[in-house]
Amino acid sequence: MVDLPTVGRFVGGAGYAPLNEASLRALVARVPTCRDLLKGDPADWKVREVGDGNLNLVFIVTSGAAGVVVKQALPYVRLVGESWPLPLDRAHFEREALKIQAAYAPMHVPQVYHFEPEQAAIVMAYLSPHIILRKGLIRRVKYPRLSDHLSTFMAETLFRTSDLAMPADTKKAAQSLFCQNTALCKISEDLIFTDPYRVAALNRWTSPELDGLAAAFRADAPLKVAVQELKWAFLTRGEALLHGDLHTGSVMVTETDTRVIDPEFAFFGPIGFDVGALLANLMLSYLAQNGHPGEPDAIAAYRHWLLDTIEAVWTGFETKFLALWRSSATGDAFVAELFTDPAGAAALEAHRRATMARIFADSVGFAGAKMVRRILGLAHVEDLESIEDPKIRSACETKALHLARSLMLDRAAIGDIRRLRARIEAADAVTS
Amino acid sequence: MVDLPTVGRFVGGAGYAPLNEASLRALVARVPTCRDLLKGDPADWKVREVGDGNLNLVFIVTSGAAGVVVKQALPYVRLVGESWPLPLDRAHFEREALKIQAAYAPMHVPQVYHFEPEQAAIVMAYLSPHIILRKGLIRRVKYPRLSDHLSTFMAETLFRTSDLAMPADTKKAAQSLFCQNTALCKISEDLIFTDPYRVAALNRWTSPELDGLAAAFRADAPLKVAVQELKWAFLTRGEALLHGDLHTGSVMVTETDTRVIDPEFAFFGPIGFDVGALLANLMLSYLAQNGHPGEPDAIAAYRHWLLDTIEAVWTGFETKFLALWRSSATGDAFVAELFTDPAGAAALEAHRRATMARIFADSVGFAGAKMVRRILGLAHVEDLESIEDPKIRSACETKALHLARSLMLDRAAIGDIRRLRARIEAADAVTS
Repeated sequence: MVDLPTVGRFVGGAGYAPLNEASLRALVARVPTCRDLLKGDPADWKVREVGDGNLNLVFIVTSGAAGVVVKQALPYVRLVGESWPLPLDRAHFEREALKIQAAYAPMHVPQVYHFEPEQAAIVMAYLSPHIILRKGLIRRVKYPRLSDHLSTFMAETLFRTSDLAMPADTKKAAQSLFCQNTALCKISEDLIFTDPYRVAALNRWTSPELDGLAAAFRADAPLKVAVQELKWAFLTRGEALLHGDLHTGSVMVTETDTRVIDPEFAFFGPIGFDVGALLANLMLSYLAQNGHPGEPDAIAAYRHWLLDTIEAVWTGFETKFLALWRSSATGDAFVAELFTDPAGAAALEAHRRATMARIFADSVGFAGAKMVRRILGLAHVEDLESIEDPKIRSACETKALHLARSLMLDRAAIGDIRRLRARIEAADAVTS
Repeated sequence: MVDLPTVGRFVGGAGYAPLNEASLRALVARVPTCRDLLKGDPADWKVREVGDGNLNLVFIVTSGAAGVVVKQALPYVRLVGESWPLPLDRAHFEREALKIQAAYAPMHVPQVYHFEPEQAAIVMAYLSPHIILRKGLIRRVKYPRLSDHLSTFMAETLFRTSDLAMPADTKKAAQSLFCQNTALCKISEDLIFTDPYRVAALNRWTSPELDGLAAAFRADAPLKVAVQELKWAFLTRGEALLHGDLHTGSVMVTETDTRVIDPEFAFFGPIGFDVGALLANLMLSYLAQNGHPGEPDAIAAYRHWLLDTIEAVWTGFETKFLALWRSSATGDAFVAELFTDPAGAAALEAHRRATMARIFADSVGFAGAKMVRRILGLAHVEDLESIEDPKIRSACETKALHLARSLMLDRAAIGDIRRLRARIEAADAVTS
């Protein structure tokens, strides 16, 4: 039995134990919604553990009729082991974030059926036949609705929880809660913004191929200042309730449906952090494509689709965020009443566009930081890890690192999505 | 008896009642520290109510031996009346802020002897022979240690509670608490950043002299965007634990001692807000001087001292904040370990200076906003209010409004304290 140093304030208790097939079956059977969905005798339900993330246990319970998912927090980081304790409370924050996201983007999050505080367990919809977006991208599946759906998810969740939409007292009550999600924020603070730029026990990279570049990054003073500026923004700028870990492994897709899962890193932070996380992982997918076998034309077509998707994610986000700002500015920032006259309306509209340009610059910078951490830090991505030949893999990774560095350093200068697209293409065209 | 719609989560209770002489005497007599200080029979202690602020009851209890102060929150805004309820919890936030400030700047805050949660009352040191700084400035008293003390107070409290010094989990725990101080933040949000720029029932100004300028401000689109940008920063940028109301009425002084009182507006916000509040009130004092009678040479000398003080407050703050950053960077932002090599050290030092320039720009902008609210908004300052002739008063106020507007619009361009000083002098030299 594991030690429980981090039982938490909100969840966990004397009865907490990692679920097994028997205890899980009993838990699900106690939830009326699940019994109605799954039907039949609980003893006939099938249970399998499928967690492939870095932190938790994830079970799927299926019957002939339906399925449900149970996600349970472990009191340590699953990827590392019991030596790295982690509070069970993250299940509480994930549940609270899912509630808020469901209020604004119900079509793009999993429905929660039940929350079991003592077990730090969320019982929610089994998304089927969805797969993890990252795996779809590796298989070169095109998702025609993806950019529309993800830009909607981001615009809705980020606008509605910002001071542009949410009254200050409501926002601060939520922020007061999520300020307590410190342990998971600390993981991001260290693993994204600091460890890749210093000698850290948990860092790893394709070695020896990237040894030189890793050392160069650790000695790159302007880059270290840039990434720490981004960290300061991450630590201080509570602009909206972020998902906090919006990579392509946190998205489940079919050709027609898109669901964002796993918001346990949620906190009030800079809007560009979520947008940048998604862009970063799409860029990594793009740069990894040439590392995987395939018909050259098919690869080229898929890479083109990825660039279109990157562009459409940003453009869709910007358009929808602006539309919400114009239609639904019910918050305490940029009080609508001040800008009803023609001069005020024009000045506000110009400011809205300047704000989107600022969020774009932030997104570009955070995207760079997120790319580096996936290549030089602890947690890597399957897009690159699944390239077996280290020479081929490191060639992709080298391009990604150079691109990422330039995004962090030039984030304020890139200016718009077309120029970002051009920069991605140029980074990939370099022969290393 | 007042209604108690806002008893609060932390303080107040069934036994709460505004203190009177008898209940106050009994309260103080129950505090051993106070009995030791005041000595003698509590029946012989003298009690007087001296609150001249906008929100609370303030009592001074004296004996032949000593004195203590009791500050009690009322469940409404004293300046406005029972029609504007306000949570008693502000006494809790003030007490918590005083604790934190006392940890870093003990020489510049009043010592707290006792906290009485049920009565929302803080029992603290009687500062004697101190007077309120604002009144000293109106009397043209020079305080040779003032700029040194206030710059120390700001550098210590703002640096030590920032992510440059405080580990993220400690800071977020404090931020989680102060995020609940929403009612007082809301007063600042509305009264500083919004109401002066729209028709609002509580606005007032020297009328009819300033009617035209007030109307012009309400129609000034670039200015309204600027002030709402500052409001967005106030709402989102949790850089450090601010005093939150650092005007010259929140400072008590003698020629050798300086104490900052009344941090009930404390919250995690942008560093420049505190610095700007202080600069704004010194600038208002400067611009009000010619409205009060006196020997021209004495007035000129005092105005020169005020400009020197403004300059020394900023310069001292910048120097001390930088020194702390260089010596005591124990926080999660700008991790010292990344910058130990010569190139890293140089890049970090350049970034430190850029950060101070950014804080200066913020301070200038917030100073502008704080000046406007004292002339066109609800709460005015005695420096100007005590000028009886409305023509003379409005002439001073007009200069202040023009200066304030330029500070908000040009905040990013002014660049350094010498140029701010020149701008203050130029604003005053204009004949309106």
